[in-house]
Amino acid sequence: MKRKLFLLLAYTLGTVSLCAQQGITQCGTLTGQKPFPLNEYKELPDPKSPDKKAWNIVSRPCVSWGSTDKRYAKGEVPTLKKQTQLKLSAWKGERVSAQAVVWSNKKINDLQYTFTEFKSNKGIALPASAFTGGFVRYVMTDELNKDKKGGCGHRPDHSKYDSLLVADPIDHLLSKMNLEEMNAQAIWVKCQVPSTTPSGIYKGALIVKGDNKQLARLELEIEVGNRTLPAPAEWAYHLDLWQSPFAVARYNQVPLWSKEHFDAMRPLMKMLADAGQKVITASIMEHPWNCQTEDCFESMVTWLKKADGTWYFDYTVLDKWVEFMMNLGINKQINCYSMVPWELSFQYFDQATNSVKYINAAPGEKEYDELWTAFLSSFSKHLKEKGWFDICTIAMDERPMEVMQKTLKVIRKSDPNWKVSLAGNYHAEIEPDIFDYCITISQSFPDKVLERRRQEHKYSTNYTCCTEPDPNTFTFSAPAESAWISYFSAKEGLDGYLRWAYNSWPLEPLLDSRFRSWAGGDTYLIYPGARSSIRFERMVEGIQAHEKITILRNEFKQKGDKAGLKKIEKILSSFNLNDFPNTPAAVTVEKACKAINSL
Amino acid sequence: MKRKLFLLLAYTLGTVSLCAQQGITQCGTLTGQKPFPLNEYKELPDPKSPDKKAWNIVSRPCVSWGSTDKRYAKGEVPTLKKQTQLKLSAWKGERVSAQAVVWSNKKINDLQYTFTEFKSNKGIALPASAFTGGFVRYVMTDELNKDKKGGCGHRPDHSKYDSLLVADPIDHLLSKMNLEEMNAQAIWVKCQVPSTTPSGIYKGALIVKGDNKQLARLELEIEVGNRTLPAPAEWAYHLDLWQSPFAVARYNQVPLWSKEHFDAMRPLMKMLADAGQKVITASIMEHPWNCQTEDCFESMVTWLKKADGTWYFDYTVLDKWVEFMMNLGINKQINCYSMVPWELSFQYFDQATNSVKYINAAPGEKEYDELWTAFLSSFSKHLKEKGWFDICTIAMDERPMEVMQKTLKVIRKSDPNWKVSLAGNYHAEIEPDIFDYCITISQSFPDKVLERRRQEHKYSTNYTCCTEPDPNTFTFSAPAESAWISYFSAKEGLDGYLRWAYNSWPLEPLLDSRFRSWAGGDTYLIYPGARSSIRFERMVEGIQAHEKITILRNEFKQKGDKAGLKKIEKILSSFNLNDFPNTPAAVTVEKACKAINSL
Repeated sequence: MKRKLFLLLAYTLGTVSLCAQQGITQCGTLTGQKPFPLNEYKELPDPKSPDKKAWNIVSRPCVSWGSTDKRYAKGEVPTLKKQTQLKLSAWKGERVSAQAVVWSNKKINDLQYTFTEFKSNKGIALPASAFTGGFVRYVMTDELNKDKKGGCGHRPDHSKYDSLLVADPIDHLLSKMNLEEMNAQAIWVKCQVPSTTPSGIYKGALIVKGDNKQLARLELEIEVGNRTLPAPAEWAYHLDLWQSPFAVARYNQVPLWSKEHFDAMRPLMKMLADAGQKVITASIMEHPWNCQTEDCFESMVTWLKKADGTWYFDYTVLDKWVEFMMNLGINKQINCYSMVPWELSFQYFDQATNSVKYINAAPGEKEYDELWTAFLSSFSKHLKEKGWFDICTIAMDERPMEVMQKTLKVIRKSDPNWKVSLAGNYHAEIEPDIFDYCITISQSFPDKVLERRRQEHKYSTNYTCCTEPDPNTFTFSAPAESAWISYFSAKEGLDGYLRWAYNSWPLEPLLDSRFRSWAGGDTYLIYPGARSSIRFERMVEGIQAHEKITILRNEFKQKGDKAGLKKIEKILSSFNLNDFPNTPAAVTVEKACKAINSL
Repeated sequence: MKRKLFLLLAYTLGTVSLCAQQGITQCGTLTGQKPFPLNEYKELPDPKSPDKKAWNIVSRPCVSWGSTDKRYAKGEVPTLKKQTQLKLSAWKGERVSAQAVVWSNKKINDLQYTFTEFKSNKGIALPASAFTGGFVRYVMTDELNKDKKGGCGHRPDHSKYDSLLVADPIDHLLSKMNLEEMNAQAIWVKCQVPSTTPSGIYKGALIVKGDNKQLARLELEIEVGNRTLPAPAEWAYHLDLWQSPFAVARYNQVPLWSKEHFDAMRPLMKMLADAGQKVITASIMEHPWNCQTEDCFESMVTWLKKADGTWYFDYTVLDKWVEFMMNLGINKQINCYSMVPWELSFQYFDQATNSVKYINAAPGEKEYDELWTAFLSSFSKHLKEKGWFDICTIAMDERPMEVMQKTLKVIRKSDPNWKVSLAGNYHAEIEPDIFDYCITISQSFPDKVLERRRQEHKYSTNYTCCTEPDPNTFTFSAPAESAWISYFSAKEGLDGYLRWAYNSWPLEPLLDSRFRSWAGGDTYLIYPGARSSIRFERMVEGIQAHEKITILRNEFKQKGDKAGLKKIEKILSSFNLNDFPNTPAAVTVEKACKAINSL
């Protein structure tokens, strides 16, 4: 069954600005219709009209390999040299991507693509399942703040920002589509090289068809090297993209924590596991981030204050969620938010009054101490029964130092063995207390501290959020930036990367990546229907590069190959935050990628 | 510490109607101040101006025995023949009352009263503790509906009804008071005859003082007969005045089910136990009566629906409440409201969404069946562990027959031994299912049914509510009516009486007995600070009479004294509902009281 998109008939290019002003949901909406996932949907109209003159020169449908660094605009003639041959290098077990582009002055019906067989000159074939693709769809976005210094702050009025339709979602659910006149359409191509693949050069092609005939044959070579990238679950990379089960339940219109909810989450979270995710995001109280996202994070723990003054905590939801994630292979860590939420208000069900109540108490206050001591005591008992205590962290976001210290005191008093995680600024005062410490990308751990942390098997990572104009993962960010981040992490000697929102979807994530706060796409990396994105695929590319670098470093260290190690540091030395925006990430990443593969 | 009454300075007699119109809380309020109970408070001004001419005739302060049948008006010269001698008859163990009145044209400072020693001619003294008294205070009330047919319906606009200051609360907390000029003030006198008192005539007096001198000595004789009324806990009388713990917590500004809450309830519920109460009112779900009272009845059971679909029920509140009441001697029955509430909406805390939710389901529907089957299974297990299953009833108010039958089906399916109670109309179809059946006072059980129920040890009682103009217990009802009710119950062969509101206080029960619904005083019988009332004392008088009649009937039956039994029936034959309003209850009750005492 297909869902039809509700679009106001009046919604033409001429009214886009009005729609943008009112918030795009006034104009087009996918929600409110079943079933999910939605296999077909219609994008919002492009606010930019195509340049007819430029398109008139395009005499017939064109198909070419493009660059994965580009978001090809829907209504623009791609500025690229037509190219029908492409060569990619990969380790065994690595996932590599390419992007093809189709553009035409006239409408093309039933645009579709297939892969030929890929064979080495020794006659060995890559399995057909190694190749997947998706049409790169267009989603509405905006831009950085007017001062170009970042994307933070509230944006209640979208009309104050440029409304831009950008290529980002990779739609693998659409087997064919009609290409409208004067449109470009990219096809994302992925090859997941099986780890058992013998090294060699594998040749095949992407066949693009339209109007019932072959439009082009794009040759593709995959050069598989000698080295092997292990399966994502084995990666050392500490990836922490925070998950929102709440957004999935809302978007898919399924009851929270029902079978249907888990069914809806499975492909999304599997995709996350395949990217090397290590951490399960758990909310242990109501609204750790004060409902800043479209969907509030509800507590996965039930807080019930009995009339006799004791607490009853129930972990049914948390257990279901954690076990679900663990079954998908995300089983290394559980980060529990938050003892220091953005609003120090703690919801519970009050048995005496038979109603929901709030305790407003801050770290350092007696009531806070009692509340959390009661919880931590119950929670540690539960975690120990489950065998999860050692992989669980009490997780904090940046808070004033004094607040964090007081919180740590309560945690340590409860059990000195509690692990603690923090995403925030670097603070030498509390650094020894933090097991999983994620600092902002613009900061660095002192070398000695980092080395000690490594020896103590503590995680040290960095993050980007709305603050950074570059590198970032907004829907309008240059695709290579999300790969760049992990090269930089490797350069800094960090274990990985954190982003606060894997899928905190706005109202209509497939149509419009803008939200009431922050720059477009800040709140999510992937799309409903387990659709990937240019940003996410490039992020995985970076994660793989980081992992490859870790492997090489270890190998060179073991071998005592100082020259090799130096080579790596040389390669990574070109990753400097100060080079933005003058040096595009694409240039640095492409160079580094090739250099790493040649090691 | 004393609380001061907040009264707008502008609140004079001239503005009373405005205040009444806006709701009296605009004009005077006691709540919002601590501590409780409030020992002193100022009544609302009397909307009626005193008749100066009539008062001018009163040359000096007057003190006289009055009648317990009268509510002496505050600003009126009492129309009574001055009387300084009074004789009361009592059984051993009985509580008897008298009312004295003081009135004066001039202000009397420090009006107070004491009791002399009470001695028989044999020199035996009644203990001083046997005598208690209280100033009869004035509370605002209204009147019956304009058609005089009852007091039901909403009354959002008090100005549409007569605003009347009536004598009702008996204030034992006030040791002395100033009597303002042209005012009458009654003193209620109670003698609780110890059950060990030898029969005889005990003589003493009430001494009334004012302006630092004795104003009067009112002689009182208590004639104690041979028979003994047992302690209230031993009474066969099935008294069921529904309690509201919620009103007490709100009025006393104490947290629900806290020590302070129980402390506040103790004297109120002790007073109820001393009236012979048998039944504990328990709410097993939220809002059994759809919040019709000032304070909603919250669930004493916590309903938590887990994310795995199972239910968690917690009985901490119910247990605390039941055990508290049992410790006060109210331990014969627990009535649990309600499987068929006035709105078929069942609140629970939904773990999955971490929020309060409602299930709307009616008896006969699958969801209702599942919900209540889950609850009843848990509840019966809990009650059996507590040893309460056999004294617990699943309690219903009048519902359509089909609904009650469907409800009974669910109950019986869960456990055929569940006891069920019903307050409503008489229905032959379900009568055998009802353990504690309370019908409206205008109806009767068929004789055979009543006899069978007696043999089956089932309770059969009747009730009044807003429906009856007479007899009733509004704050403006004739005092004798609340005694009359129990004589009538005895006549009908019933086990007792039910009223739906012992203490469902309106906002300021001491000041204003009116509510947004029903005639004044419908929602409560007693006052904050465990102050009794004329209505309540007369009700206890009726209950005692009923108990005495039960004792006499049993005695005469055992003796085979048919003449005695006939005498009782003759005495009771004068209690006829049709005689209202022509024959005042006072006449019938006084005659019957004397006749019973002479048996």
